Amino acid sequence: MKKYEIGLIGLSVMGQNLTLNIARNHSIAVYNRTKSKIRNFMENKVQNQNVKATYELEEFVSSLKKPRKIMLMIKAGKPVDLVIDSLLPYLEEDDIIIDGGNSHFEDTNRRLKNLNEKGIRYLGVGISGGEYGALHGPSIMPGGNENAYAEVSDIMENAAASTEKGACVSYLGPRSAGHYVKMIHNGIEYGIMEVLAEIYDYMRKVMQLKPVEMGNIFAKWNQEFDSYLVEITAKIMQKDDPKTGRKLIDLILDKAKHKGTGKWSVQSALDLGTAIPTINAGVNARLMSAIKTERVENSAQFASSSRPVVNKEELLPLLKSALYFASVIAYAEGFKLLKTASNEYEYNLNYKEIARIWEDGCIIRSGHLEPIQAAFAEDMQLNSLITARQFKSQLNAAADKIDKLITTAAQAGVPLTAIHSALDYFNSLKAEELPANLIQAQRDFFGAHTYQRRDQEGTFHTEWE
Amino acid sequence: MKKYEIGLIGLSVMGQNLTLNIARNHSIAVYNRTKSKIRNFMENKVQNQNVKATYELEEFVSSLKKPRKIMLMIKAGKPVDLVIDSLLPYLEEDDIIIDGGNSHFEDTNRRLKNLNEKGIRYLGVGISGGEYGALHGPSIMPGGNENAYAEVSDIMENAAASTEKGACVSYLGPRSAGHYVKMIHNGIEYGIMEVLAEIYDYMRKVMQLKPVEMGNIFAKWNQEFDSYLVEITAKIMQKDDPKTGRKLIDLILDKAKHKGTGKWSVQSALDLGTAIPTINAGVNARLMSAIKTERVENSAQFASSSRPVVNKEELLPLLKSALYFASVIAYAEGFKLLKTASNEYEYNLNYKEIARIWEDGCIIRSGHLEPIQAAFAEDMQLNSLITARQFKSQLNAAADKIDKLITTAAQAGVPLTAIHSALDYFNSLKAEELPANLIQAQRDFFGAHTYQRRDQEGTFHTEWE
Repeated sequence: MKKYEIGLIGLSVMGQNLTLNIARNHSIAVYNRTKSKIRNFMENKVQNQNVKATYELEEFVSSLKKPRKIMLMIKAGKPVDLVIDSLLPYLEEDDIIIDGGNSHFEDTNRRLKNLNEKGIRYLGVGISGGEYGALHGPSIMPGGNENAYAEVSDIMENAAASTEKGACVSYLGPRSAGHYVKMIHNGIEYGIMEVLAEIYDYMRKVMQLKPVEMGNIFAKWNQEFDSYLVEITAKIMQKDDPKTGRKLIDLILDKAKHKGTGKWSVQSALDLGTAIPTINAGVNARLMSAIKTERVENSAQFASSSRPVVNKEELLPLLKSALYFASVIAYAEGFKLLKTASNEYEYNLNYKEIARIWEDGCIIRSGHLEPIQAAFAEDMQLNSLITARQFKSQLNAAADKIDKLITTAAQAGVPLTAIHSALDYFNSLKAEELPANLIQAQRDFFGAHTYQRRDQEGTFHTEWE
Repeated sequence: MKKYEIGLIGLSVMGQNLTLNIARNHSIAVYNRTKSKIRNFMENKVQNQNVKATYELEEFVSSLKKPRKIMLMIKAGKPVDLVIDSLLPYLEEDDIIIDGGNSHFEDTNRRLKNLNEKGIRYLGVGISGGEYGALHGPSIMPGGNENAYAEVSDIMENAAASTEKGACVSYLGPRSAGHYVKMIHNGIEYGIMEVLAEIYDYMRKVMQLKPVEMGNIFAKWNQEFDSYLVEITAKIMQKDDPKTGRKLIDLILDKAKHKGTGKWSVQSALDLGTAIPTINAGVNARLMSAIKTERVENSAQFASSSRPVVNKEELLPLLKSALYFASVIAYAEGFKLLKTASNEYEYNLNYKEIARIWEDGCIIRSGHLEPIQAAFAEDMQLNSLITARQFKSQLNAAADKIDKLITTAAQAGVPLTAIHSALDYFNSLKAEELPANLIQAQRDFFGAHTYQRRDQEGTFHTEWE
């Protein structure tokens, strides 16, 4: 009986597309809890002898070459534990389970530990690129047992997107390193999406631009930025709604959803004591958007702000510069958090390599990743991208001229949650003096929490009254 | 043998002061793991027959009237579990354990459930007011077993601060309601402290004011605000350093610490899907302050921003109005999160009563709490304070004129993390339209996550390319 190189459980669209992708180069057995999904997939999508459908777990496992390589493409959380438990009776020492979902990194640590104790190897693998990427080549972020990665690296490399620098996949580090990096990838994605949304909001509310005009502007800017998110924003603005003939963007309800990784990024950053305010703003802005009914009720109680008169020729370059600024800050926050996490969790991350595998396939691919790699090539332990030669003067120039944008937005009552946060992050990170001396004085005043001094070592307490 | 009305474990300064406070009206036995602390306390602080020192846990417990009432004033986390475990062998059904520390609300839920199964009653009690409040009357926020509270209410009421409306203590709700409310109290405290720090930073960096001038300004403003945090800020500005003769504020290192409750507030808000950006900014700003060495290194790499010319007479009223605005928004965020938590956790919170017991004794006491009570008296289920008659037009007026402040701060490179966040929160919460339609379009473009429409029910997916 033919034995297959790899197995995949979970035939959602992501799982289906990844199967079709892998099957171009490798034989693959598939399994899904709902059997009709397997049949539909085989009948309608698969035209390749490399894919074998199996309808029982035992059959699935026994169809695989040893050591077995089993990829899970299932919903993060409890389902992953359940599937692992159901697999265990059929597995043998050295078999490899690969979790390709957006699992919380702490779950991945726990599962790896438990499975390693049973002799089963484990990889926590972040995969970015959506449905299209899964089919045509995603960015793949693996972490976990390194010797297990060595045995699946050819499959991963063949499936991944690639640039002239190689496949967009690289072993990132032990335990949950892969899922941690993917979580932060998604956090950066939240930040940049919110920045784009704010620029769109300003363009329509303050400058009264129409979607087609905005689409043209985003497309023009993207000749420089080469950013996937800017690219799709431009395309979205041009899309017609077949039902009404209007632009589709004007018909979509302004209630954003989220699926966990943005929130987890912020919660993890807080646990590690590292601020990621632009990413954080992206998460908060989605939460604010979700209470649409309340916002509509509230808005009826306030008069509209008067619209400031702005000069389109003056403002467009400022908006472009703000998009550059806040997007780069989102990357800077993400990489700074990765450095903190790498130290704390001993991931030994290679930041240059992370930027390289994000250059294609994933949602945050952009022209910014090339100078990010150059910055880390010059200083592997760079504390922040804001001081890198590749960004410093451009960021500073952008911050210097952002006042006109934020002034007119304030006058018009347009929130700039992420852009303000990026500005404050930049201004804080380069501030020799912040006003936290007052906070320390207050804490010592009401709680005797003590403070440090500028002129002496030690901790001090003052009887303030 | 005389039996004491209540027992207290943990003679840190807070525990000592609370003991002295309670002993004015009730007999109290005390215990501490380190025995020398008990002796020092008895010898140096206690001049009251109502306090009995005990040196063994069994002696401590047996000195108490039944059902025993035992208050823990110990460090949150593992120590609380250890002390509870060590007490259990000596306790009987219906005894009451009262945790007066800043325990995480989920720990309180767990402990209450475990103890209730053993027949022991439990109260999770937030206490605010620092050392001074503990001695002279704190604000007390109890939650847990309601019948247990009925048996300690006289002790709590006698110990608490009081206003003409009564003692600053009230049973808040079941399980962790008390600790949850205290956590959010502290979150609001983080927000307001950061707002004050930013106004101080602007005054010194942009307006070049000296501490004495700033102290006078804060004191004058506080005739209107009647806020404890503004009051101590004014006093801090006037405080001389005896060692150098300089103003102490200028000698305190600008690295703020934090102790958990601010972080927990943000993490809980994210779990509940409710944004509290001004409070969140207070936490993030402390984290940014902590990396002082890196900030100093970074600052050397950037030229100083040019200082904008500002008119003191014009700016001071704007700063006062920004202080009002962002402080009220911090309360608004906190109360909105309390409402979400009350619904989710079935606390059945009384927001008017919470504002009442915050009116004295605690760190966030201020003149804003009177109109907050009035707002909730008019509408118990008010969604947000921003639409309350007591605040709406003042907030709107403040937001309308905030542009000059944020413009000049941006020009000077001064971060306004909390003030920007408050402005964006306000502008988002009253925005009929936010740009989340673009975010939903992007999510559907790259991930087929679907979207809702404005003109039709249902969920939709578009083939964008």
